[in-house]
Amino acid sequence: NIVDIRVDDPIAFTFFTGYMAMLAASIFFFAERGVVEGKWKLSLLVSALITGIAAVHYYYMRDYYLATHQTPTALRYIDWTLTVPLMCVEFYLLTKAAGAKIGLLWKLIAASVLMLVAGYIGEAFADGSTSHSVLWGTISTVGYVYILYTAWAGEVAQLARASGDVAVIKGIRALGWFVLVGWAIYPIGYMCMKGGWLNTGLGWQASSVDLFYNIADAINKIGFGLVVYGIAVSGKSPAA
Amino acid sequence: NIVDIRVDDPIAFTFFTGYMAMLAASIFFFAERGVVEGKWKLSLLVSALITGIAAVHYYYMRDYYLATHQTPTALRYIDWTLTVPLMCVEFYLLTKAAGAKIGLLWKLIAASVLMLVAGYIGEAFADGSTSHSVLWGTISTVGYVYILYTAWAGEVAQLARASGDVAVIKGIRALGWFVLVGWAIYPIGYMCMKGGWLNTGLGWQASSVDLFYNIADAINKIGFGLVVYGIAVSGKSPAA
Ligand SMILES: CC1=C(/C=C/C(C)=C/C=C/C(C)=C/C=O)C(C)(C)CCC1
Ligand SMILES: CC1=C(/C=C/C(C)=C/C=C/C(C)=C/C=O)C(C)(C)CCC1
Repeated sequence: NIVDIRVDDPIAFTFFTGYMAMLAASIFFFAERGVVEGKWKLSLLVSALITGIAAVHYYYMRDYYLATHQTPTALRYIDWTLTVPLMCVEFYLLTKAAGAKIGLLWKLIAASVLMLVAGYIGEAFADGSTSHSVLWGTISTVGYVYILYTAWAGEVAQLARASGDVAVIKGIRALGWFVLVGWAIYPIGYMCMKGGWLNTGLGWQASSVDLFYNIADAINKIGFGLVVYGIAVSGKSPAA
Repeated sequence: NIVDIRVDDPIAFTFFTGYMAMLAASIFFFAERGVVEGKWKLSLLVSALITGIAAVHYYYMRDYYLATHQTPTALRYIDWTLTVPLMCVEFYLLTKAAGAKIGLLWKLIAASVLMLVAGYIGEAFADGSTSHSVLWGTISTVGYVYILYTAWAGEVAQLARASGDVAVIKGIRALGWFVLVGWAIYPIGYMCMKGGWLNTGLGWQASSVDLFYNIADAINKIGFGLVVYGIAVSGKSPAA
């Protein structure tokens, strides 16, 4: 009953590293929540929950992968079903002081649901054909682009500017970069699956799906949390 | 010993998502309990207990379902036996400041016990006949309707109005909606069982029982808690 990660299996490596990084990040955000100003405590709690939920799922996904060497698609999407909406909550909380309405949160969550449901159909019910993969990938991308737009030019961006708070403006800009660059790693992973463009076009292996997803998760979940943390502590140093 | 959720098994999906959502919600309510005003701490603790108790049962129910693909009826009712009375406690706590007597709590609990005992007989001792399912479902509904009445027009509603506290009035109204719409999902699930009206009438599958119960639990247990949380923090922002 030991954790047997083969030295030539980088994917198993990232599953385990991801698990540990998520757990550590979660403890970090919980602990620091006690230190930051009151108005940021809720945001830090959400960061801790995102990474904590991921830690549990990585624990399961790691075992699943070690035992089967298959992609744990269901576990992956169960994780995202919870963590992506919580990331939308972060956007909402950061712009709330500037007047964000709860409707903004629902719109972001609706876009995430579209993105994830379509992605799930694309992966879970894949028949190895390019048409299936492209169709559902495209539908999913509509949801993704909506979130991207909201963060960069839509309501979130406008509210951040309106807040007049330098830390919030910078923070939302940083989160926008995560959505633009960090989140874009997921569709790259998706296209590695059998029949996907990177699979058929460049011959990238289907097993790389998990490699990309694991790297993206570490960057986005922990990175998002650190940006929020950065905003929360920025007011404390006189230089800010 | 891995968690093997088949991609085409939405019920397993909801068991696992439910588990994780309950756990995260429980941690959330515990953590935020430390931040809210003193008079709301008890209500938040009860919310944390409701979702925490559910997390444990979902952990077991998930495994039970994965192993047997049967409905974990006993575990389900064990959960409800504890969590529904705790929801009645929430109603009591919210209206206590306006003069709720302990007798109100006992009446609500008695109605829940009737609702759950009858429901359990209906499900656990089902013989697949419509008459059994309808008889016990109807008895159960008497208890449900009593709680519904109390929340919308009876003692709870009257006390909320008498409190003159806008947050409490709005909160009790929101909880009333949960009881009316969210709780109504349970009888829908119940009627999917073999011999139930939706099973014989519309041909809905018996396996949908768990799908409806899982969705309803997530909405009601977490939603209830969030409403209470909303009341607790509403006093903090000057806009409230
Ligand atoms: C666009 C697109 C996708 C995007 C996935 C994304 C953007 C996932 C983000 C997950 C996050 C941020 C999790 C962190 O908690 C899919 C579903 C792979 C399907 C292909 C098209
Ligand atoms: C009316 C009715 C039912 C109602 C069940 C309810 C309303 C359960 C609520 C559970 C909650 C709120 C749990 C959360 O903690 C049963 C028993 C299915 C049997 C059929 C008739």
